[in-house]
Amino acid sequence: MNPNNEIRFAGFGGQGIIMAGYIVGKAAAIYDNKYSTLIQSFGPEARGSACSAQLLISNEPILYPYITIPNIVVALSRDAYDTYGHQITKGGILLIEKDLVQIKENTKDITIYAIPATRLAEEMGRKIVMNIITVGFFAATTGVTTYEATRKAVETSVPAGTEELNLKAFDTGYNYGIELLKPKKKLVTD
Amino acid sequence: MNPNNEIRFAGFGGQGIIMAGYIVGKAAAIYDNKYSTLIQSFGPEARGSACSAQLLISNEPILYPYITIPNIVVALSRDAYDTYGHQITKGGILLIEKDLVQIKENTKDITIYAIPATRLAEEMGRKIVMNIITVGFFAATTGVTTYEATRKAVETSVPAGTEELNLKAFDTGYNYGIELLKPKKKLVTD
Repeated sequence: MNPNNEIRFAGFGGQGIIMAGYIVGKAAAIYDNKYSTLIQSFGPEARGSACSAQLLISNEPILYPYITIPNIVVALSRDAYDTYGHQITKGGILLIEKDLVQIKENTKDITIYAIPATRLAEEMGRKIVMNIITVGFFAATTGVTTYEATRKAVETSVPAGTEELNLKAFDTGYNYGIELLKPKKKLVTD
Repeated sequence: MNPNNEIRFAGFGGQGIIMAGYIVGKAAAIYDNKYSTLIQSFGPEARGSACSAQLLISNEPILYPYITIPNIVVALSRDAYDTYGHQITKGGILLIEKDLVQIKENTKDITIYAIPATRLAEEMGRKIVMNIITVGFFAATTGVTTYEATRKAVETSVPAGTEELNLKAFDTGYNYGIELLKPKKKLVTD
């Protein structure tokens, strides 16, 4: 496992993408005993509805919190994919919102995992939990943070009274990711 | 007005303190045409329920996002006050949650404004908006971001469908701050 993970979370305002980054950072630092920093830079590029954050996770204290080219990108909107989906290190991972992002070219150098997080959240009756579903999906597919640490970070970060709903959302995303990782069944004949 | 503002937002998990910092940063950069960065560092000091973020607002692009001694601290919990309430530059501002923070010593070098944000949020029927009330209070008392810019940042940052509630919360906090700034009435006799 890469000792340093440089992760870009991107989407549009209201998706809770910053909160998603915050929870993963907290999971890594508080419950997985690593170090992490989360940064949002607001500049001219942030005008409009785009919303993104840079998360660094390291085994060592972090002196410089900016990322150059991330090895993981979470793109929850078409704009996010257009802006950040093509700048990923070789062997990296791209997570996308399945219903909102259309992959234009499928590069051989990265692995892409897609989840209909918004739809799954709507099926739970609360669209607002789509970011927590994404956090579960992130933990399952990237392995950057452990199941236990990430779940605990969800539980301790969401508003009091919403823990049960959010943990259910987390497990929904996590299980969706685990299913994707399973080898596809093949027709086996004698 | 100080061209650079270094602001510490601190509280406990679930208060939405990071979101509050995010909205102020967005207001400054997107709607007030400044630059801002928001950073959360997770390290050993972050273990426990404490939660804090560093927000820099500048008229120039920001190269180094860490703050040393802030000129403004927003402390929404007793722990936050104990940890950060005494490290403020001379002439700085301390905002506190009135029902959660007891001021131990009243230094002459800073100005303190207190708001019962949790109680006001409960009176609105949604405790979750206490951070947005705080954002309104911040804009009114510090003047770091304008009313229009901050309100717009609230509107474009909260989940779709919750704008009305959150704008009402913002105005509640803003008006509370404006009332505090008004000169106290004195008994005037002929």
